[in-house]
Amino acid sequence: MGKEKSDKPAFQLKVPKGTKDWEGKDMVIRDKIFAQITEVFKRHGAVTIDTPVFELKEILSGKYGEDSKLIYDLADQGVYRRDQPAMAKGRMREFYQCDFDIAGTYDPMLPDAEIIRITCEIFESLGWQGRYTIKINHRKILDGIFSVCGVPQDKLRTISSAVDKLDKSPWTDVRKEMTEEKGLDPEVADRIGEYVTKKGGRELLEVLTKDAKLSTNESAKAGLADMDLLFTYLSSFDVLDRVSFDMSLARGLDYYTGVIYEVITEGSAPQTATDSQTKPKKETKKPAAAANGEEDDRSNDPSVGVGSVAAGGRYDNLVSMFSGKQQIPCVGISFGVDRIFSITKQRLASSPAASAAIRTNEVDVYIMAFGGKGFDGLLPQRMALAKRLWDAGIKAEFSWKVKPKLPQQFKAAEANGVPFAVILGEDELKAGKCKVKEMGLPEGHAEKEGVMVELENLEQEVRTRIEKANARAGDALAGGMAGLGV
Amino acid sequence: MGKEKSDKPAFQLKVPKGTKDWEGKDMVIRDKIFAQITEVFKRHGAVTIDTPVFELKEILSGKYGEDSKLIYDLADQGVYRRDQPAMAKGRMREFYQCDFDIAGTYDPMLPDAEIIRITCEIFESLGWQGRYTIKINHRKILDGIFSVCGVPQDKLRTISSAVDKLDKSPWTDVRKEMTEEKGLDPEVADRIGEYVTKKGGRELLEVLTKDAKLSTNESAKAGLADMDLLFTYLSSFDVLDRVSFDMSLARGLDYYTGVIYEVITEGSAPQTATDSQTKPKKETKKPAAAANGEEDDRSNDPSVGVGSVAAGGRYDNLVSMFSGKQQIPCVGISFGVDRIFSITKQRLASSPAASAAIRTNEVDVYIMAFGGKGFDGLLPQRMALAKRLWDAGIKAEFSWKVKPKLPQQFKAAEANGVPFAVILGEDELKAGKCKVKEMGLPEGHAEKEGVMVELENLEQEVRTRIEKANARAGDALAGGMAGLGV
Repeated sequence: MGKEKSDKPAFQLKVPKGTKDWEGKDMVIRDKIFAQITEVFKRHGAVTIDTPVFELKEILSGKYGEDSKLIYDLADQGVYRRDQPAMAKGRMREFYQCDFDIAGTYDPMLPDAEIIRITCEIFESLGWQGRYTIKINHRKILDGIFSVCGVPQDKLRTISSAVDKLDKSPWTDVRKEMTEEKGLDPEVADRIGEYVTKKGGRELLEVLTKDAKLSTNESAKAGLADMDLLFTYLSSFDVLDRVSFDMSLARGLDYYTGVIYEVITEGSAPQTATDSQTKPKKETKKPAAAANGEEDDRSNDPSVGVGSVAAGGRYDNLVSMFSGKQQIPCVGISFGVDRIFSITKQRLASSPAASAAIRTNEVDVYIMAFGGKGFDGLLPQRMALAKRLWDAGIKAEFSWKVKPKLPQQFKAAEANGVPFAVILGEDELKAGKCKVKEMGLPEGHAEKEGVMVELENLEQEVRTRIEKANARAGDALAGGMAGLGV
Repeated sequence: MGKEKSDKPAFQLKVPKGTKDWEGKDMVIRDKIFAQITEVFKRHGAVTIDTPVFELKEILSGKYGEDSKLIYDLADQGVYRRDQPAMAKGRMREFYQCDFDIAGTYDPMLPDAEIIRITCEIFESLGWQGRYTIKINHRKILDGIFSVCGVPQDKLRTISSAVDKLDKSPWTDVRKEMTEEKGLDPEVADRIGEYVTKKGGRELLEVLTKDAKLSTNESAKAGLADMDLLFTYLSSFDVLDRVSFDMSLARGLDYYTGVIYEVITEGSAPQTATDSQTKPKKETKKPAAAANGEEDDRSNDPSVGVGSVAAGGRYDNLVSMFSGKQQIPCVGISFGVDRIFSITKQRLASSPAASAAIRTNEVDVYIMAFGGKGFDGLLPQRMALAKRLWDAGIKAEFSWKVKPKLPQQFKAAEANGVPFAVILGEDELKAGKCKVKEMGLPEGHAEKEGVMVELENLEQEVRTRIEKANARAGDALAGGMAGLGV
């Protein structure tokens, strides 16, 4: 934390590739996102855990399987997620993730349903009502489909990874990958295509349950029974309309064993087919940006997948990889804070009023002094009043000048959007009074010029006015992303 | 974040040396420390900034001067602070620091005084009243002393670093280091000794101001004038009694240009002379602990200095090292969160009641169901009520079992210290009612068995009771370290 007077530093230090210094309104927005996520997590009984930013290599490589190319070896050349940063999209090397996981043995689909409820509460607390979709699918249904369609055992993983690209590529491209690149029998591919291009709600579940082929497969039947129960629970939680049963959702990581989730939103739109087919982007990189330690924001690695703001699923076997014999069923979700931040920022960019309402500090009171000829600045008095307000827990500041000019003090308060001024004058102080002025009142307002209050009641007078102003402005001052209209 | 049912995992994963997984009550305590620091920072108008955990090497090596051996080169063998971890003392390789810095040109000593006021508010919000001391000194006074005592220019830095060891070693040891190891003329050392062994308050300042030798030195005079003004301001802020003008304080980093601060407390006591003289500790390391990735907690590097929980000072020239010509005066302080955590934990260890009062989650309501023969578990009803409480922002949970037994539900609520139960029964539901029971009421209390409330008013009934219970318990439930009595 720091206290600085300008939003823009006059010079810029270089930071490592894929990282950024967080400051100004960006920092405020990110903090609000963290605060909303934390509040919802705690509402659902979360206990907080925090792990080191780096882990022993054998642990990460055990967990990530195919994606282990995304891990940095510290003996190597850098740190953190080892793919191409896309800063404006929130794809960074240093990134934040908030995870909610439920570990333990419970009755089927109850923790799974609560994870989806939590996800809805978070995106609605961020003001995203009607602008996000939770795609869901089930590992066992996918396995059943691949099995009844005749995918050979040794091609399961690679075919599943091809299916997962259906969010950014049309079926014809994915089919081509399956048959031409991965050597799958075209008839098998066509049978898969009939299933994985479907999406819908409960009605799709009914269609699949009646499907002659799938109903012979134990894995598919178990997955469909799970989904039926999940839909019932989501209905009790009143969030059924936020989910889309999307049979193309396969997720890259291969440790999922049950339901899988992925949340998409406006602004996290999948790349166009053209984008995803673009070959290595080196040629389009602007040398100036690259020299500055930043990458072309349009660069994307199509093998990694972009577009989701949260994702997760059930992973019942992962813990036993580390514990030895002990099996602990788990289900969880990760919220991509940097991605959510980028989308929030894009939306704010098209709403100048909401953007202007974001303050970088939270000071409620600026203590000022004024006087005529021979005015000494009333510094001890300003300091003593600041001390009283701080003791009362009120956020307050004053000019760090011995004899500040009144217009400069007003300018400083206005620059930070401070809502109240406490104004000291020598005559008023002698009478045991000072002026409290609410900033930004319209011309003609009865209290436009401020009101005189008793010095001895200052804390109470100020507190009452702050509370009233906050209530009047709804949440616009107190914060809350929904209040910012994004 | 996660939701787990037990505090102790049944197995333990190895984490990298000098790091830890934060969980359970440790996590709650650390979060509360962060929350208190953040609240005070914001009360003083802080804007938040957050920088990557790693920086480009040329930036760190420019900043740290002599201490650059404490920086990891990522091409090398690890990450982060490269000294010997002492986990129980909060000396870690991955560590947290909260900094408050004021950058810009203001009237002398005003930002410097506010930093000290902020420091006092933070330690008092943590419940450390009367148990911490802010040692202060001034770089220019030290420079003046070295100059009038006759320290050669090329020995200034090394003699200053010897003086800084006076917090853990007696003067005789430090004198020996100056004369025998560093070749200082013994007469010069004795002259230094007369000054740097002094500590006190305003009266010491008066003695120094009248000192015949110092008053001929421009640097010392400027430093003493600064200190005089600082003391006046600290008096206005009502924190003068928290500081000790300690002439042995020199601080390791050589970029300070004015006032320097260091905060010490009970439990952050300096090492004994014996400890600090101990030669390389490899021999005393317990092999079992070392194999487990942990170091002997008593290991310390005497060249680094232990014992302070916060430290800082004025550094007017640092910014220009990076900006080129632009000079930005700065003053700031860093709070060592891991060190503060360790001390808080030691104090909690001697207060079982305060320790037991720390809950790892914040759930206020556990929704239960009970019934006789043929009882179906009332799952849809429990889920629907949970949904209503969550919608109202109330922290609530229920058993993830279809047909849980009542004693198991009580046991789960008690294990987490949940203060209220909402209990559903079939007959009561038919009558549009349910029971609200405050947990842990004493025998004989009128509401010991709970009270029946109208289902349609449940949110309001529950909210009112939570607020009442919180008010009754003061801050004991709502948090606040002071409320925990540590």
